Order: sequence, then C-alpha cells, then structure tokens
Amino acid sequence: MDSKKQDLKIGLIQSQALLEPKKNLEKTLIKIRQCAEEGAQIVCTQELFCTRYFCQIEDPSNFNLAETIPGHSLDVLQAIASELGVVIVASLFEKRMKGLYHNTAAVIDADGSLLGLYRKMHIPEDPDYYEKYYFTPGDLGYPVWTTRYGKIAVLICWDQWFPEAARLVALQGAEILFYPTAIGWQDEDYEKEGEDQYQSWQLIQRAHAIANGIYVCAVNRVGQEDRINFWGQSFICNPSGKVLCSASSTEEENIIHTVDLSQVEYFRRKWPFLRDRRVDSYKNIFRLGFMEVI
Amino acid sequence: MDSKKQDLKIGLIQSQALLEPKKNLEKTLIKIRQCAEEGAQIVCTQELFCTRYFCQIEDPSNFNLAETIPGHSLDVLQAIASELGVVIVASLFEKRMKGLYHNTAAVIDADGSLLGLYRKMHIPEDPDYYEKYYFTPGDLGYPVWTTRYGKIAVLICWDQWFPEAARLVALQGAEILFYPTAIGWQDEDYEKEGEDQYQSWQLIQRAHAIANGIYVCAVNRVGQEDRINFWGQSFICNPSGKVLCSASSTEEENIIHTVDLSQVEYFRRKWPFLRDRRVDSYKNIFRLGFMEVI
Repeated sequence: MDSKKQDLKIGLIQSQALLEPKKNLEKTLIKIRQCAEEGAQIVCTQELFCTRYFCQIEDPSNFNLAETIPGHSLDVLQAIASELGVVIVASLFEKRMKGLYHNTAAVIDADGSLLGLYRKMHIPEDPDYYEKYYFTPGDLGYPVWTTRYGKIAVLICWDQWFPEAARLVALQGAEILFYPTAIGWQDEDYEKEGEDQYQSWQLIQRAHAIANGIYVCAVNRVGQEDRINFWGQSFICNPSGKVLCSASSTEEENIIHTVDLSQVEYFRRKWPFLRDRRVDSYKNIFRLGFMEVI
Repeated sequence: MDSKKQDLKIGLIQSQALLEPKKNLEKTLIKIRQCAEEGAQIVCTQELFCTRYFCQIEDPSNFNLAETIPGHSLDVLQAIASELGVVIVASLFEKRMKGLYHNTAAVIDADGSLLGLYRKMHIPEDPDYYEKYYFTPGDLGYPVWTTRYGKIAVLICWDQWFPEAARLVALQGAEILFYPTAIGWQDEDYEKEGEDQYQSWQLIQRAHAIANGIYVCAVNRVGQEDRINFWGQSFICNPSGKVLCSASSTEEENIIHTVDLSQVEYFRRKWPFLRDRRVDSYKNIFRLGFMEVI
C-alpha cells in the first residue's frame, strides 16, 4: 500500500463579527495573513464573514449588505491569495442581479485566480434564521475544485444536515470538505437542549467524513449577536470521523492543522464503502416522501 | 403542537452465539420471552442469531447452516410472536433456492403473521468478513412495515454505513430503524484502532437518526468467535442522535427501553431537514464516481 504522506496545512478562521462589514474584511485579511505565516495552504472563512448574521430579522435594507462576485471583497481576497500563495475559501453574500441573492462561497486558488463559486443549495427557515427570505437556493450543483494543494469542495451550514450533498462532492473526488457555518444557541434553548444540539451538529459532519472517507472542516462564528450565541467549536475530522482539533466555544481562534491526504486512500481501503454502493437501488432518493396519509 | 406521547417498548437481544444452531434458537426464544415479560412490544435479534459468525472462512459446508423462509426457525418465531403478542425482527441465513442464499431479516407481526422480508442490500467483503462468498445482494429494496406497534424498517450490519439506505426507509415512513449486526475487533486491530472503529460505528448510525428524524436501534452480538471479538454495545438513539441506552461490550444483555414515537414529529419540526431536500439536484447519486484518472 502506498503510504507516502501527502501533508497539507489547513487554516480555519473562527471569528466574532463586528457591526461594520469593512472592519470584518480587514480583520479577516489579518487572520488570513496569520494563518499563512503559520504555514496554512488552504484557508477557509466562517459563513458570511463580512457581516453579522443579519438573517435574524426580515428587513429589505439588509440586501444592501450583498455584493457582486467579482466585487470588492473578492478583489482583495484574490490579491492576498496571490501575494501569500494560499488557497482561500470565502463565504460571501452574493448579489447576482437586482432582486436575486445567494449565500455563496468563492474558491480562490493560490495564484489568486477564481476557481469558481458554490451557491448554498439547502436553505433553512426557522425562527431567528430567516434565510429563505434572503437567499435563493443555489443552481450550481455540488462542484469540486482541484486547487494547487488538493481537491476540495465547499458546502454551507444547513447543507451539513444532508448526507446527499456530502456524498455528491465525494463521488466527484473531493478529499477535503469545508463547511463555513453560522450556528448557535438561542437563549431559550440553551439550558434545555443546547449541548444536544451542538453534539448533533458535530456528529453528523463526522458521519459524512466516515461515509465518504474524506476530511471534513467546519468553520463556525463565535459570540453573541442579538438572540443567537454562536457556539464556535470549529473543527477538523479525519476520514474515520475522528476529531483532530477543535476551537473554543467562546473565543476567536485560528485553527491551524496539518492533514495527510494519503489517509483518504488508507481509510477507504480499510472500510471500502464506496466499493459497495447499490446505485441500482437508490432511485427513490428523488422523492420527498411516500406517505400520503398520516 | 401535538405532544401526546406514543410510547412503545423495545427489546434488543445481545447474545453470545453457541456452536449449535439449535441451542441458539432455544436461547433466543427464552430471551424473547424475557423481553415480553418486561413489556417489550417489538423485539429484535442480532444478525444471524442462529449461528456463530461463519463468514470468517469460505467453506461450502457452511451453506448447510441456511434455512428456507418459511422454515423451522420462522415457524417457531411466528408461534412465540403470536403467543406473546410481540413483533419480532429476526435475522436469518436464508436459503432461497439451491445455490442462492441471502442475509435476510423476517418481520413478524404481533399476531404471528409474516409481514415480509428484508434482504441485506450492501454486502461486505474484508478479511474475516467473507460475506460476498455467502450472500447474494438483496433484491427487495428497502421495505417498511406497519406493525401493530409502529412503522419500522430493518437494515442489516454493513448497510449501517450507507446514508442512502437509512434515507430511503425514512422517506417511506419508518419511525424506528433496526440494525441487526455482527461487528467486532480483530485481534490485531484492537490496540491500534479499536476504540476509533467502535466510535465510528456508533456515530454513523446516530447520524442516520439525526438526518432522518427517526429512532435507530442497533443489535450486536458479543464475545470471542475465532478471530473476532464482537463488541456488543447494542444501543438505541433518539431522533436527535442521543444515545438513550447502551449494552455491555462483553456480556449478554437484553436492552429493554421505552421510546416515544411522538418525538419523531417533535424533532422533525425542530430541525425540518425533510422539508428542504433538493431532490432536483441529487441525480449523480446514481453514479459510483466521477474521477477517471487518479
């Protein structure tokens, strides 16, 4: 068995958002630089890092926070990617055209070129998470990019709960899956179900790593914003779902961690799930449900 | 919200297999009776409970261990189900016809009638688990049964690792998913990766509970058989993936636990993943992979 290591250093930026978008961009550029100084080759931001999590209310003026891609944020991110020689996965509020907005991730290669976009496919809508008001569900499917340092995919937050999405990027060859995220405790939940919610969130992402034999990196924001206390705890897990490192639940923190991409082959040989999928039997996955009467 | 409890008592039989199939059947009948005496309404056996785990070698004489369904084991299980008024999920080595064998679960309703069969869809093949030699992959898809006490589905062991299978039974209305199982540590693995393997096994099943908002019950065998030390630790988790009870890693044990099926609705409203599936975007789930050159 080929056991040659394929080391790759990842940087995840867990941050507390400020009110002014300009300052969040500045702060994130500093943190990207810190990650690069520590040797990170691929750096990922939290979800919608330029702003606070504005989806806690439905307010048409919040669409002013969106920007075009390309646009100002992308320009400066491309410049710093090229300067530092790092791949950047950046989560942005995209204004696609008048009245059409997406929750989007831009993937920038280490030479500063834009490799492409992922537009969040699964959009939540719950009290304090009014995302269906802001974001049109994505129309770009589940792309995978060959960056200078590895084959990666990006899914965003609510996508975390859908095994289909993780499977689809793995089948296309992704070896590291990034999840920029904004999830936290609502005040009334914390006592009752807070710990369980956090456990479920970490657990289902670790399961995607196992089912697909890939690395998973979750990047969450931290700190109180209005009614949500974002729970941080960004983490990286290996292709058997083992958590390699995890950040604070209350503080800003860059996770810098080296992964070994040869472990993708190692674990897939050990537990060869991809060999045994019954693709002849999955046709009903296209249905929303079967029961007509409850 | 309708918060009327829908309690249902489950019994899981974690056992150490004896050499003689007849004695395993006798022992299991006693344990079914014990479960019923404690109030269990649905009882599930471990995988291939009538025999030791014979798949550690490829030996044509082992096909003698298979039996037809209907057949002797099913007859006595139907009789005891009817006598005790319990639903029984029984994992059997099925001889379908000369030279055609399956790893099958029979679902018997509380009146003793056979509701149907599930034939293991995903078949492993690894050192000490030579199942592709014995079992033809199933051709009955992913059925769901309305038993006297609830809507249930059965998947078997290796199926545990495939999110598609759990999704498909949930979409058909299953509220409790049973996994009869035979998994353990091989001697050479234990020191190095034993704990991680067990963690991955429990974790991916808990993730199916979360993704689909269903109860999951895993029933594993226990004890040393040739080169495998079966790790027991049968468990039940709720629709948010929380482990409600777990058995010993070394001893025989009946798990008897009451679940509340109204929690399926509760958790699906809390985290409405089934609302947001992008069935328009999953077509590539039918492919085995995309990469043609590695």
